Amino acid sequence: MSTSTTTRSPSELARVLPPDVSAESFDAAIAAFAAILGAEWVHVEPGQVSVYDDEFPVTGDHSYTASAVVFPGSTAEVQQIVQVANEYLIPLHAISTGKNLGYGGAAPRVAGSVVVHVGKRLNKVLELNGKYGYALIEPGVTFFDLYNAIQDAGYPLWIDAPDLSWGSVVGNILDRGVGYTPYGNHSLWKSGLEIVLPDGDLLRTGMGGLPGSNTWQLFGPSFGPQPDNLFEQSNFGIVTKMGIQLMGAPPAAETFQITFENAEDLGTIVDIMLPLRINMAPLQNVPVLRNIFLDAAQVSERSDWYTGEGPIPDDIVEKMKADLGLGYWNFYGTVYGPPPVVEQYLQIIEAAFSQIPGAKFHTTQTRPHSDSDRGAHTLHDRHKINTGIPTVEEANLLNWIPDGAHMGFSPISAPDGADALRQFRMVKKRADSFSKDYAAQFIIGLREMHHISLLLYTKTDAQQRDDTLRLVHELIDEAAENGYGEYRAHHAWADQVAGTYSFNDNAQRRFNERIKDALDPNGILNPGKAGIWPARLRGRGL
Amino acid sequence: MSTSTTTRSPSELARVLPPDVSAESFDAAIAAFAAILGAEWVHVEPGQVSVYDDEFPVTGDHSYTASAVVFPGSTAEVQQIVQVANEYLIPLHAISTGKNLGYGGAAPRVAGSVVVHVGKRLNKVLELNGKYGYALIEPGVTFFDLYNAIQDAGYPLWIDAPDLSWGSVVGNILDRGVGYTPYGNHSLWKSGLEIVLPDGDLLRTGMGGLPGSNTWQLFGPSFGPQPDNLFEQSNFGIVTKMGIQLMGAPPAAETFQITFENAEDLGTIVDIMLPLRINMAPLQNVPVLRNIFLDAAQVSERSDWYTGEGPIPDDIVEKMKADLGLGYWNFYGTVYGPPPVVEQYLQIIEAAFSQIPGAKFHTTQTRPHSDSDRGAHTLHDRHKINTGIPTVEEANLLNWIPDGAHMGFSPISAPDGADALRQFRMVKKRADSFSKDYAAQFIIGLREMHHISLLLYTKTDAQQRDDTLRLVHELIDEAAENGYGEYRAHHAWADQVAGTYSFNDNAQRRFNERIKDALDPNGILNPGKAGIWPARLRGRGL
Repeated sequence: MSTSTTTRSPSELARVLPPDVSAESFDAAIAAFAAILGAEWVHVEPGQVSVYDDEFPVTGDHSYTASAVVFPGSTAEVQQIVQVANEYLIPLHAISTGKNLGYGGAAPRVAGSVVVHVGKRLNKVLELNGKYGYALIEPGVTFFDLYNAIQDAGYPLWIDAPDLSWGSVVGNILDRGVGYTPYGNHSLWKSGLEIVLPDGDLLRTGMGGLPGSNTWQLFGPSFGPQPDNLFEQSNFGIVTKMGIQLMGAPPAAETFQITFENAEDLGTIVDIMLPLRINMAPLQNVPVLRNIFLDAAQVSERSDWYTGEGPIPDDIVEKMKADLGLGYWNFYGTVYGPPPVVEQYLQIIEAAFSQIPGAKFHTTQTRPHSDSDRGAHTLHDRHKINTGIPTVEEANLLNWIPDGAHMGFSPISAPDGADALRQFRMVKKRADSFSKDYAAQFIIGLREMHHISLLLYTKTDAQQRDDTLRLVHELIDEAAENGYGEYRAHHAWADQVAGTYSFNDNAQRRFNERIKDALDPNGILNPGKAGIWPARLRGRGL
Repeated sequence: MSTSTTTRSPSELARVLPPDVSAESFDAAIAAFAAILGAEWVHVEPGQVSVYDDEFPVTGDHSYTASAVVFPGSTAEVQQIVQVANEYLIPLHAISTGKNLGYGGAAPRVAGSVVVHVGKRLNKVLELNGKYGYALIEPGVTFFDLYNAIQDAGYPLWIDAPDLSWGSVVGNILDRGVGYTPYGNHSLWKSGLEIVLPDGDLLRTGMGGLPGSNTWQLFGPSFGPQPDNLFEQSNFGIVTKMGIQLMGAPPAAETFQITFENAEDLGTIVDIMLPLRINMAPLQNVPVLRNIFLDAAQVSERSDWYTGEGPIPDDIVEKMKADLGLGYWNFYGTVYGPPPVVEQYLQIIEAAFSQIPGAKFHTTQTRPHSDSDRGAHTLHDRHKINTGIPTVEEANLLNWIPDGAHMGFSPISAPDGADALRQFRMVKKRADSFSKDYAAQFIIGLREMHHISLLLYTKTDAQQRDDTLRLVHELIDEAAENGYGEYRAHHAWADQVAGTYSFNDNAQRRFNERIKDALDPNGILNPGKAGIWPARLRGRGL
């Protein structure tokens, strides 16, 4: 066991300055921030700042430690902060609420950056429209907040919640998060952004550019190119408002769970699934295929099953399946509509997957939630998420091992049995070699799957942490060699992942850098995020 | 009657050179193009070049006349052309097939530009995937071509056709065109672009950046920002390949027509429509609400009804409605699914709109196509378009008046009765004052409507043409004063429309210019398109 970076000792709480900035210059910038915001909204004490360290540390040093945190209370204040940062060349790291577990949390890519906590005070639902089904929100609005606002208004609208609803809606969308209702592709359902650009200028996209328009949240583009998706997974601006369109609640909904016995059933499951999914019926939502470890971790701890060395042996896995009434793979989805449609779709789905020997089909009706049937837990939690109700149950996963944390490895797969099996075997084999459980899920869009492996480790154990980081690095390279690329990455491997998109001498990276330099000539905004470095800090090996 | 620019007299066929380019420099560039492509793929004779003039001229001069046309045969040749253009500062105007009627046709914004006809030789369906439902296509592929390729392969896939299928799929999507099936928002269904940037560099977006990936057409982003929508309605690159996802053919489909008696029914129609549309059921496709003139023009000429001065009087409109069995407004949509679902949805739709006095409900079954019932024409044409079958019937509109052409005025409206009525009255009143028929439709997305007025004029009549242009200019200003903005514009009013998105000292325009200058420092690619001017030509009043 070595030191955890989340509980730094007093001697470690030294001030970390940004690159190329003197203490005097930094102090002057901090004074300027305080003049704008008031001193109470500028935190520089290491004890105050360290709470923005990555909750799931991936290194034992200060690679991702901030120098200060500021809390703007208006768009204009965000603009002023950005202007000061340009003057003093202070790197800023903008966050909405600071969740983003497994992908860096609230921590900046460049040590010594000033965290701009946009969501702390900008946390309002500015408009909620029941007629058209949309909200205009600020970055601090969490999924719970948005849900509560809808309930208070009494509108029959649903949110599309991710696994954990404690985070920011805006932050989730900007990191291209996914959910599980028919609105699960979050990026598609934003409509209209207000953005502070890296020079402090203010842009409203789409119909927000037209004074007096009442369609900002109704129609995404305006006239000319639509830049909104430039602000996802990037460092081109700080989003201060976002429109989000909301699904209307259907007349009825029912969630099913199908358990499959064998790990190698995966290929058949995916091949049966595709034709049911691609036309959005009968599989209407974003369904998910989870393996035994994810579901077992919701209701038990690893040590309940196994305390030996290495990954959990097969005979123990069999015992987990039997005790919990789960399969190696467990498939969850929800159907929506008038009750006859729901009934008809459930029958089609059950019939299709029942072709697989050993498959068992349950619904929330046939498998009620009870203390004696722990395997029903995820079914009922999924039913909530898939019907627009926020939860945080999935965080139980972190109790699977002591001081649990995870690193996410998230390649995209074609919705094809052979591809799914190849990715599964690739990750499983390498995880085994690191004595680590393969805890994974496939989240299923219309024509692709997010294959998300949660590589668990005890965050207070430096050896485990370092091994897990090494495992991720090896997986990224192996995946790329096989034509598989990740959709998302922690700071610690963002450069590596960006580097796998290497076509034509890294044309994507070079394009991103060109945009970066045009919008952020001083390189002050989230330098290095998503593998995009500004000219000033490029090639510095930060 | 004055001269038409589409049939220029010999004396008019003088060479038009681009701004700031000497004849010697231009000739050197042409020689360089010929060295790359072969002389047969470089056209400079005015007689060859004038065929790329706007088919619907909006001025009587050479404001939008090209100097030459080149026909690249590969992506590499497009790159080389762009490099030569940078060397000689030749403005290029890239087109896919050159349709785009009412929005400028094949003509460049800047006189003397060299048209890069990308689609002439790059016209292949490179891949058609029946399993996942997508195609990878080149710019010259028309909707007919794509349809035919699907039929040849025998896949149960549909195209989403616009009103006229003779144009380029890529071109339509890049100008943010719309269609009428559930895949009617074309921009959403592209996946993966190959783009020649204005400096000749080559970018593949999304998973196309990862060597060996099999998900380029399955998952739009990669890791980092997704720039694809930057290349719609812009001049930031020349798209040489595009992935497009295709809808699977449903088990059954039926198209309906609902006729509504009165112009002022519009508000009620829209208000009944919204709750049926916003959840994509029972109104599953992009339905359209067309007024009497559009439908009458499919099967008759204006002079059949009226030869007097001014817009067609009300009593004649009543006669048109009675003779054709149509309403002032006529609503078309299609429902899809297993036959019981189709039947159920049709019943819900009929019941909802039958609340409006005088409304009549037809389907293709209850109102068959026949010579004696001309009012059934559009119903059956729409059924084709709404079930993935390309047509060009809508071009009949151009026969409504002699030498017919149109200018498009296309504001976005909220899907709200009061907004629709306000826009209708605004356009109708001003069209009346110009003695012009109001021929219009509302194309209905999930949360917005494209209100498209086709302002018809006789293209050989200079007075009509000039009046119509003035009408458009006045409408744009009046709409903007009321908070309504256009989604698309002809070169001749692109600057004006872009100028209506004026928030924060034209932040959208300034942002676009910043991107433009970063990607196209010499300002050679489609200068002025969509109101985006490069630094070199900015403020020149071209």
